[in-house]
Amino acid sequence: MSAARGDEVELLVCTTCRRDAPDGAEAARPGAVLHDALMSHGLPENVRLKPVECLSNCAAGCTIVLRGPGRWTYVYGNLDASLVTVVAEGAARYRDAADGLVPWRERPEHFRRNCIARIPPLEAPE
Amino acid sequence: MSAARGDEVELLVCTTCRRDAPDGAEAARPGAVLHDALMSHGLPENVRLKPVECLSNCAAGCTIVLRGPGRWTYVYGNLDASLVTVVAEGAARYRDAADGLVPWRERPEHFRRNCIARIPPLEAPE
Repeated sequence: MSAARGDEVELLVCTTCRRDAPDGAEAARPGAVLHDALMSHGLPENVRLKPVECLSNCAAGCTIVLRGPGRWTYVYGNLDASLVTVVAEGAARYRDAADGLVPWRERPEHFRRNCIARIPPLEAPE
Repeated sequence: MSAARGDEVELLVCTTCRRDAPDGAEAARPGAVLHDALMSHGLPENVRLKPVECLSNCAAGCTIVLRGPGRWTYVYGNLDASLVTVVAEGAARYRDAADGLVPWRERPEHFRRNCIARIPPLEAPE
């Protein structure tokens, strides 16, 4: 399956992430705060926000994933609610790269420095 | 799309990983060594080995990914060629979990301590 520039992509946000919050803290979890901030901020067209329980990147949360059929999947970490505009910008650039591979210089600075992993599309040739 | 216990899964290995090798080292890259060691060791039935250029987990390589249609995808790090039996065992357990979610106690010790990220299947309900 191949994807086209601008096709719908998913932005997953780990909503269980505690980041620096102590265990048992009563306040909302930083991951949930990030998710809600993104929802309030609004996202670029064809970027679909989706909450996920635990993306298992606990050492470097908060965490998001950008993915879509036929594209490379990217995991980014060390995020917080102050970075919603960065996430929105990075998501738009990802959406506009048919294979998910955004040129290095076009990635937001935070994305360049905090890429946790990337995974090729299931359909990638060897 | 749903998966069944035992269905074919993919084991991706980052073959460009340098791990602790210095830049410009002439020796084979640790990621490529890990890949070749897995090929020589042999893998459980229905676990398909696939080399990938850069999984972008450079801070915690060598790196593998376990994935399959309809399953959660897992990224594991800090691996080397001495751990091929661990990787093979973990891959078999992953293959035998229809959704990719292997119970914590059944995961190899190294997998428990070195999970880099996990990503839900594209088909996961919200």
